[in-house]
Amino acid sequence: MFVGDIAGFDACAAVHYDAAHSCEAIQRTNRADIMSRVLIIGAGGVGGVVTHKCAQAADVFTDICLASRTLSKCERIARQIKRPIRTARVEADSPANVVRLIRRVRPDVVINVALPYQDLSIMEACLATGVDYLDTANYEPPEKAKFEYRWQWAYRKRYEKAGLMALLGCGFDPGVSNVFCAYAQKHYFDEIHSVDILDCNAGSHGRPFATNFNPEINIREISQRGKYWENGAWHDTDPLSVHQSFDFPEIGPREMYLMYHEELESLARNIKGVRRLRFWMTFGEQYLTYLHVLQNVGMTRIDPVDYEGHKVVPLKFLKSLLPEPSSLGPTYTGKTNIGCLIEGLKNGRRRRVYIYNVCDHAACYREVKAQAVSYTTGVPAVIGAILMVNKVWHRPGVHNTEDFDPDPFMEQLSRRGLPWVVRELRRGEFRVK
Amino acid sequence: MFVGDIAGFDACAAVHYDAAHSCEAIQRTNRADIMSRVLIIGAGGVGGVVTHKCAQAADVFTDICLASRTLSKCERIARQIKRPIRTARVEADSPANVVRLIRRVRPDVVINVALPYQDLSIMEACLATGVDYLDTANYEPPEKAKFEYRWQWAYRKRYEKAGLMALLGCGFDPGVSNVFCAYAQKHYFDEIHSVDILDCNAGSHGRPFATNFNPEINIREISQRGKYWENGAWHDTDPLSVHQSFDFPEIGPREMYLMYHEELESLARNIKGVRRLRFWMTFGEQYLTYLHVLQNVGMTRIDPVDYEGHKVVPLKFLKSLLPEPSSLGPTYTGKTNIGCLIEGLKNGRRRRVYIYNVCDHAACYREVKAQAVSYTTGVPAVIGAILMVNKVWHRPGVHNTEDFDPDPFMEQLSRRGLPWVVRELRRGEFRVK
Repeated sequence: MFVGDIAGFDACAAVHYDAAHSCEAIQRTNRADIMSRVLIIGAGGVGGVVTHKCAQAADVFTDICLASRTLSKCERIARQIKRPIRTARVEADSPANVVRLIRRVRPDVVINVALPYQDLSIMEACLATGVDYLDTANYEPPEKAKFEYRWQWAYRKRYEKAGLMALLGCGFDPGVSNVFCAYAQKHYFDEIHSVDILDCNAGSHGRPFATNFNPEINIREISQRGKYWENGAWHDTDPLSVHQSFDFPEIGPREMYLMYHEELESLARNIKGVRRLRFWMTFGEQYLTYLHVLQNVGMTRIDPVDYEGHKVVPLKFLKSLLPEPSSLGPTYTGKTNIGCLIEGLKNGRRRRVYIYNVCDHAACYREVKAQAVSYTTGVPAVIGAILMVNKVWHRPGVHNTEDFDPDPFMEQLSRRGLPWVVRELRRGEFRVK
Repeated sequence: MFVGDIAGFDACAAVHYDAAHSCEAIQRTNRADIMSRVLIIGAGGVGGVVTHKCAQAADVFTDICLASRTLSKCERIARQIKRPIRTARVEADSPANVVRLIRRVRPDVVINVALPYQDLSIMEACLATGVDYLDTANYEPPEKAKFEYRWQWAYRKRYEKAGLMALLGCGFDPGVSNVFCAYAQKHYFDEIHSVDILDCNAGSHGRPFATNFNPEINIREISQRGKYWENGAWHDTDPLSVHQSFDFPEIGPREMYLMYHEELESLARNIKGVRRLRFWMTFGEQYLTYLHVLQNVGMTRIDPVDYEGHKVVPLKFLKSLLPEPSSLGPTYTGKTNIGCLIEGLKNGRRRRVYIYNVCDHAACYREVKAQAVSYTTGVPAVIGAILMVNKVWHRPGVHNTEDFDPDPFMEQLSRRGLPWVVRELRRGEFRVK
């Protein structure tokens, strides 16, 4: 059963549920009289999307500054947009440097789409200058491929005390995936028993090997051990060892692999009574062959190696050889499908619901000069920032996206290019083993 | 029909042919009263074998010096050998540095088993000091993966004038492969019409990916375009695009790939009237997958790439991550089979002869602490040096191994660990398409 569908969809009208809708909040979000300044840090593929989408939201963001270590990347993005975009150089590793930039720009919110290593320095700078903070990927220490929220959650009390808000992981997954869970919890379930987050990229960029976002971060993420939550405990698996085929709507069957992903950590805390949480991502056979080879020869190592007297980190060096993810856009075809398959009880009866978005690479490129992986990450970040500056989502402290009312976010998703589908499933349909 | 076979084989007695044998030369080679000094430059896998085998030839080499840029590698090899071995540090890129070393050591011959980039500087140093020279792999310029004899052949007049001899490419292939051709020409054919050199390594080192000699040189060699000689002209092929299965004696069927190899250049000049010359090497599917991936991501590039302000050559960096070829020995099992399949006319009738050596990795390791790829390269170099210092093979100028009487070399091969087989083939047997 199709419930809500696609572009131009009006959340107040089309979605079936019992709970009252937050239409007041949604209306507030759509008010045209809020003028605010946004500082975007990071000018990669996602930074480009965020800048384009902030520029589209002219009623919200009257002033946009895009900053990066490489000014030319900011300027290239600014040239794609008709509205004037300010650009700046910033060393995001240095809180002092970010503080100076924030003092100059005086933004209402900082959208951090730089490297995950830089989350803490930017959070520090926001604290020092009294500005709200948002990011899409959680901090990981450079010397260890391990992502956990604890480093960022540790800022909770300081943000609360300062009356500031930090919104963590507000991309698609994490971000929208958490909102989908909160939305299901609010409208579809009394008890959620299991969540499978399913991330499929069935696009083709025509290169033998490339990663869809920063290769360093991407390869660190997928070469670590798998992990899922079941019956109150974490369980480990060998990297990419658990996999199965799944028939993705609008795409078809693809092999998907169990991985650890950061939203599992917050969802395990925030979905009360959940019994199982898993994350799955699709990979093509060729991609995995390349990854396997690069791992086996040592090219994915993140410890420095001596090369003619210089320290070279193999994975960073590999990154310098691979195509820039933002360069893949022009030739990218095919679609992504990211969503949550959720099981639980409603009124004492078993229910299964599948909420997902399908995004088309070429359509994204036409709109914002970026492929769908960047698009699906960047658009939710802009939505999060809109909800924050409009005070629809605003509570001092450090938060994940499932901490807030999902309805205004869901409404914005459809309005801003990421329409979603809620599909009520029959027994056995879209089964994940 | 088996003609000569294996260890302890006496070339004077067992080989069937019409021409008179050079038994006098062979006897001279085996004289015990020649005392000479050898300087070995290069302490990789082949350098180790050369040092071991020179030490075994105590009747020829009374004094052995092993030099390399890394003294500890020389010392490690010296410790494996009961006889005293002198060691020295040398920068083989610098002719002046090599000259100083040669003046100190005063060798009768220099065996160059360093990097091919260093051939010219060592040849210069030998000229400057009046010492004979031998190597196993021809010069290639560092910035271009292209091997040709022209740079070294250009030294011919200067060596002649100085009364010195340089013997080029005296490993197995080139080296023994050329001697096999000369031997076939001398004893089996009036006219040689075609030669296929077949190089099979069916060994297993138990690592996901490693090269059997210097990875940088190995990968440069096999990633270049294929080339063969036919009807008076060179023909090009895409890298590794031409291949077929061949049933190697003592090994079984293996897929072999047409490649360019340096001995084709000298054989095309030296085998009068030859119509076709080809070189084939076997590769496992996994090896080729790895190679393909590494090429596609740019890791086999030999142009420098900027990495955090330093110039890094991807292929050299890859080399620093891969296992040292000399470290593969202890676990290496299986065999190599390298030989020449030769067709032509004898007394007006078609004849096909297959001359080859089979070498066992583990047996090599037991003898000299190196695998068969190093062994088959190092032993012929020592034989060449023995023939040179004994004046059995000695003529001023720059030579390839087919320029001399093959018989004493063939006799030494069997004596020193590389016994060979001459197999007279029936029609259709061991066919190469």
